[in-house]
Amino acid sequence: MKKIIVELGERSYPIYAGDDLLGKEDLFSENIRSKQVMVVSNTTVAPLYLEKVMQSLQAMASRDVDVESVILPDGEQYKTLDAVNEIITALLEKRFSRNSCLVALGGGVVGDITGFAAACYQRGIDYIQLPTTLLAQVDSSVGGKTGVNHAAGKNMIGAFHQPKAVIADTSVLDTLNDREVSAGLAEVVKYGLIRDAGFFEWIEDNIDSLVNRESEAFAYIIEQSCRNKADIVAEDERESGVRATLNLGHTFGHAIETGLGYGTWLHGEAIALGMLMAADLSQRMGWIDSEVCDRIEAMLLKLSLPVTLPDNFDPVNMRELMSVDKKAKDGVLFLILLKGIGEAVVTNEFDEGLLMETLHHFSTNKSSSAKGNE
Amino acid sequence: MKKIIVELGERSYPIYAGDDLLGKEDLFSENIRSKQVMVVSNTTVAPLYLEKVMQSLQAMASRDVDVESVILPDGEQYKTLDAVNEIITALLEKRFSRNSCLVALGGGVVGDITGFAAACYQRGIDYIQLPTTLLAQVDSSVGGKTGVNHAAGKNMIGAFHQPKAVIADTSVLDTLNDREVSAGLAEVVKYGLIRDAGFFEWIEDNIDSLVNRESEAFAYIIEQSCRNKADIVAEDERESGVRATLNLGHTFGHAIETGLGYGTWLHGEAIALGMLMAADLSQRMGWIDSEVCDRIEAMLLKLSLPVTLPDNFDPVNMRELMSVDKKAKDGVLFLILLKGIGEAVVTNEFDEGLLMETLHHFSTNKSSSAKGNE
Repeated sequence: MKKIIVELGERSYPIYAGDDLLGKEDLFSENIRSKQVMVVSNTTVAPLYLEKVMQSLQAMASRDVDVESVILPDGEQYKTLDAVNEIITALLEKRFSRNSCLVALGGGVVGDITGFAAACYQRGIDYIQLPTTLLAQVDSSVGGKTGVNHAAGKNMIGAFHQPKAVIADTSVLDTLNDREVSAGLAEVVKYGLIRDAGFFEWIEDNIDSLVNRESEAFAYIIEQSCRNKADIVAEDERESGVRATLNLGHTFGHAIETGLGYGTWLHGEAIALGMLMAADLSQRMGWIDSEVCDRIEAMLLKLSLPVTLPDNFDPVNMRELMSVDKKAKDGVLFLILLKGIGEAVVTNEFDEGLLMETLHHFSTNKSSSAKGNE
Repeated sequence: MKKIIVELGERSYPIYAGDDLLGKEDLFSENIRSKQVMVVSNTTVAPLYLEKVMQSLQAMASRDVDVESVILPDGEQYKTLDAVNEIITALLEKRFSRNSCLVALGGGVVGDITGFAAACYQRGIDYIQLPTTLLAQVDSSVGGKTGVNHAAGKNMIGAFHQPKAVIADTSVLDTLNDREVSAGLAEVVKYGLIRDAGFFEWIEDNIDSLVNRESEAFAYIIEQSCRNKADIVAEDERESGVRATLNLGHTFGHAIETGLGYGTWLHGEAIALGMLMAADLSQRMGWIDSEVCDRIEAMLLKLSLPVTLPDNFDPVNMRELMSVDKKAKDGVLFLILLKGIGEAVVTNEFDEGLLMETLHHFSTNKSSSAKGNE
């Protein structure tokens, strides 16, 4: 088991990563002080792991602990204020106090909703993260970004609220399908692109081990990803600077997710294409060689991640949706672009015409593409 | 104009109190840095003051400021997640960024909803408070407690999120009806009871000036209340200690509001009776003389505030509702009680039988009252 600390002064917390951690009672009793514990999961994850987690929680030594659970429907389309309200209703029905603790058992959606419910319930209670997807283990469960979607924009309603611990049980990855694993690998690739060229090269060199889901390779990338994430969050908790680079591909990706309707593409799939689009625009700006784009595209293809927009997805509409993104300031859009592998910048100094070229370039809509300047 | 600073390090902010402040452009331009400003008000307040506020905002010197507004229905029953969602929808429709600023123009309900929308929108944006009721000016607009109600409990969903400024225009009090003014005076009385015996005596001595709504008396109590509130918040921003005493009467009062349905009694009315009930229990515990209860009751009667529970309000049901309050910890109820005028304590060391006696004592339901131990 690896233990990585996210250094945030009095809000510091551990990330544990290793095999079969959901059954380790001591990890729970070390990190939960409350006597009222509510596990939040979804209809897909609960049948697999809820019982094990409940047993670990109920076994917490010699404490008279009340452990309850609430099960949400599965899917990004349910990441709404209604889901938050459902958790809060369950907490109130059980008379849970402001000293209670939520436990998020699931992927990024469950983690984001649960974290936000913890941020809001009685103006803030504890929570811990038990991420059960690769994406959640390498990215979303770490760093305290919580929130839900609005019909008009992703993650528009939320809070910064750090968990008390993240327990990433790598044995749960066995139950994920290939598509989910690939979506998680997109965020792993991201760390290489924004700050860790050596890690990017390691992924290139070991891509077959990842495609074949070899457990040693996964242990390595989870640890490296968590270390990268923990370093960035420790440096810039509330995203006033370097943390924004973690959003590489996200302005493009969120527009795809919003435009398609939540849940059509997986988040990691949208981010994968978004990163490639950011690289493409960086190349059109003359900041990187086309060879960099080719390497990224080759990697995404190997990982079965998308490299073109969905059919009939309109570039002009996509540009509109990008303007709603949180990275816009006073109506000016900021993007994360690349100056090289391992070097990302946050900038509004991109050429609007080149951005439209990028959007058209990835469109599969021929008539639309013809309108571009290519 | 008085200026009082709430000392919270980098989150410090000014409270301004005085006549005709809503027309003072410089106050707005000094305290708002954003170019996107959304005023949130309600259907009662907007016709009175929205135009004046919009003019002050639009006049902000030489800045290309986009000023919009959203008008909510009026009433505690609309203090819900739906109202928060309505504000966020308006912000997204106008493409407002995470650098935008909300302006809460209204009473405590508008302030609480707007503050929470500001806490949540894109994980936190600026807001300023323009309180237009006495209660909001002396209490709720100061201190950063924001939130909305859940059907099962008041203020159960919320956040600590400090405003950038509070601008209390005392001339708006002229448009309040007597009932609203009395409700505000309940929270003024509270400062006397919990920490400022001299202020309590001043209110006793000047009660006729308050009943007659003399402006000098109001200027004095607003300033004293804001100073008391600012001191407490500076000492204990997130209510881990002394700030909890500000909840004197609130566990009783919230149970009344929840039991009656939000909006039947004004918040200050429920708090007034709640404070008297807390005093009554303190007296039954032997902590204060019955003379203290008499002085509080006499003051509330002079101010036309309630001193008995609503008709047919069941004490047993009320006790149940009190258990849901945020002051409960791990299922144990904590109350704010009095050891004297100007001295409040947070305690779970009250006698459950005496609490039921208090609840029955204030019941107007004769058959129910007969079940008590009196």
